[in-house]
Amino acid sequence: MKIDLLKFVEYGGCSAKIPAKQLEEILKQFPLASDPNILVGIDTHDDAGVYKINDKLAIVFTIDFFPPLCSDPYEFGQIAAANSISDIYAMGANPALALNIVMFPSKSIPFEIYTDILRGGFDKAAEAGVKIIGGHTIDDSTPKYGLAVIGFVNPKKIITNSGVQAGCKLILTKPLGTGIVFAAQKTGFVGSLSISVEEAKQQMKLLNKSATKIMKKYNIKGATDVTGFGLAGHALKMAKASAVSIKIKMKQVPLIKQTYSLVEVGCIPGAAFQNLEYTENDSLFAPDLDYNLKMIAFDAQTSGGILMSVSADKADDIINDLHKSGLTSAAIIGETLMLQEYPLIIEN
Amino acid sequence: MKIDLLKFVEYGGCSAKIPAKQLEEILKQFPLASDPNILVGIDTHDDAGVYKINDKLAIVFTIDFFPPLCSDPYEFGQIAAANSISDIYAMGANPALALNIVMFPSKSIPFEIYTDILRGGFDKAAEAGVKIIGGHTIDDSTPKYGLAVIGFVNPKKIITNSGVQAGCKLILTKPLGTGIVFAAQKTGFVGSLSISVEEAKQQMKLLNKSATKIMKKYNIKGATDVTGFGLAGHALKMAKASAVSIKIKMKQVPLIKQTYSLVEVGCIPGAAFQNLEYTENDSLFAPDLDYNLKMIAFDAQTSGGILMSVSADKADDIINDLHKSGLTSAAIIGETLMLQEYPLIIEN
Repeated sequence: MKIDLLKFVEYGGCSAKIPAKQLEEILKQFPLASDPNILVGIDTHDDAGVYKINDKLAIVFTIDFFPPLCSDPYEFGQIAAANSISDIYAMGANPALALNIVMFPSKSIPFEIYTDILRGGFDKAAEAGVKIIGGHTIDDSTPKYGLAVIGFVNPKKIITNSGVQAGCKLILTKPLGTGIVFAAQKTGFVGSLSISVEEAKQQMKLLNKSATKIMKKYNIKGATDVTGFGLAGHALKMAKASAVSIKIKMKQVPLIKQTYSLVEVGCIPGAAFQNLEYTENDSLFAPDLDYNLKMIAFDAQTSGGILMSVSADKADDIINDLHKSGLTSAAIIGETLMLQEYPLIIEN
Repeated sequence: MKIDLLKFVEYGGCSAKIPAKQLEEILKQFPLASDPNILVGIDTHDDAGVYKINDKLAIVFTIDFFPPLCSDPYEFGQIAAANSISDIYAMGANPALALNIVMFPSKSIPFEIYTDILRGGFDKAAEAGVKIIGGHTIDDSTPKYGLAVIGFVNPKKIITNSGVQAGCKLILTKPLGTGIVFAAQKTGFVGSLSISVEEAKQQMKLLNKSATKIMKKYNIKGATDVTGFGLAGHALKMAKASAVSIKIKMKQVPLIKQTYSLVEVGCIPGAAFQNLEYTENDSLFAPDLDYNLKMIAFDAQTSGGILMSVSADKADDIINDLHKSGLTSAAIIGETLMLQEYPLIIEN
């Protein structure tokens, strides 16, 4: 039976997130867990929590799931799993174990679709070396899938969003635009989108495994993955956690095909405006900043690339290594500065 | 603002699970992860997965979440957290770390309700000694809350649903009936339910911490917690995983007040019939089995008690210890036998 998963969804992928601003305000009300073994907790809004078992081993713990953002269940499973595992890679850890998280409308979608989603997840997990050892499924009106993932890392080698120093270059490993391209497809954009949709799906299925291998080779300390809060939102979280300013040059940012022209004709998902609202008080937008590029900076990504801060003299070598590993869109997209009046600066 | 969370829910608590029968058939299609360090994987349908770090330390990993089953957000948070942590206790482990899992309709429910749900979760986690180090929130039409939890255990001291031996007594630590009582409340049952609802909520908020402490004292090897598949469903999973038969005497099973009389007047939630369908091919029902007691055996529990298999000569001592610890409803409810034609036998 041919089922289009998108028919069951209002918001797909990471665009279904709650606005970051409200979340931060709410979480501030709770006391932080006090335990010297918690190396990364809830306070830095990092990609995952980290807990030290002993001097050589720490657990990295993360969870992510969302409604389908594409029609095909197997591809949805692959993308959701790659996206969940990405938080482990972003912290420089090796993903090891996972639990399936499934919400499924068993009365309106046949179970073979459920099986195909799971198969996508199992296959992507296997590619990452992750063993799925359990899970939780409930009946729900909108299908959703993802993983809770545990990774292992040497506690001295954790990469965090608070590990960024001033005077570095910023590298992004995947092109932006997944939110925009899929919004265009869903709203029935008139014109051929198939090449862009295919590129977006390939990028979302891609594990951030080789990016992490290269980060480890160069002893990178500060990085995050770019997901629901967009490039600008995640850059701001990183800048705040590291007490630096981050300057992004949007014309250097790699884009999925047609992303710019879709924004030009008005295809800007609502999540981008939520992300803008979250960051604008802390951001300085260059007076001549192209409006389309600005909104692309706020586009919610699903299974996006790694945003890493690298020492300026190593940046070209790292880009070379990333390109050789198959991440051909990887580019230097900005730099880090001593903390200025605004933690985030966005230019053309 | 006074919000009744139940207005946003079709199925609450563990009754929102997908039928166990379909789940098992689907999961059978996937290859098992092969790794000698996976001590408990997806195949035994245990409460949680277990992974050995070294000879003295294993990670226990579980996840659970569901829609509200009561009107008050703080109580919902407490119950959902107790329920999620319970899987760790059921395996004899110490719960240590957790991630919040939240789905929240931010356009229809004010954020203070979200905060109250989280506060319930944080408080219950603190009671269990669990540190919440992150989480994931998405916008969704039906609110849902729960935790992904990591516990630690000595790998030689894991308690599993495959650790049951024949010739033992079965003990249940909490009374049954949460599904029935809450279904009665939701469907507008005419009559006073407040005492039963209060008892059900108190039981669901109760951590299975002291039960686990007592299981460890007596070196118990086989146990599970009773949740969405009902007493009979979980007993059957345990019997199959342990290759024994389990006989339950329903008249000995502790019940929440009014449970029997509610079933008598026809209040049987749909989930009980799903659970019956799952187990009936493997079950022998005594010819004189009271129909109401039969359906109570299939009632989906939320944050239910521990079902443990104990050596017959220690059963009375264990019951005494459980009663002294505050689990005053704990009772011997049956026994385990060498595998018969039917793995599950239910009598009056």
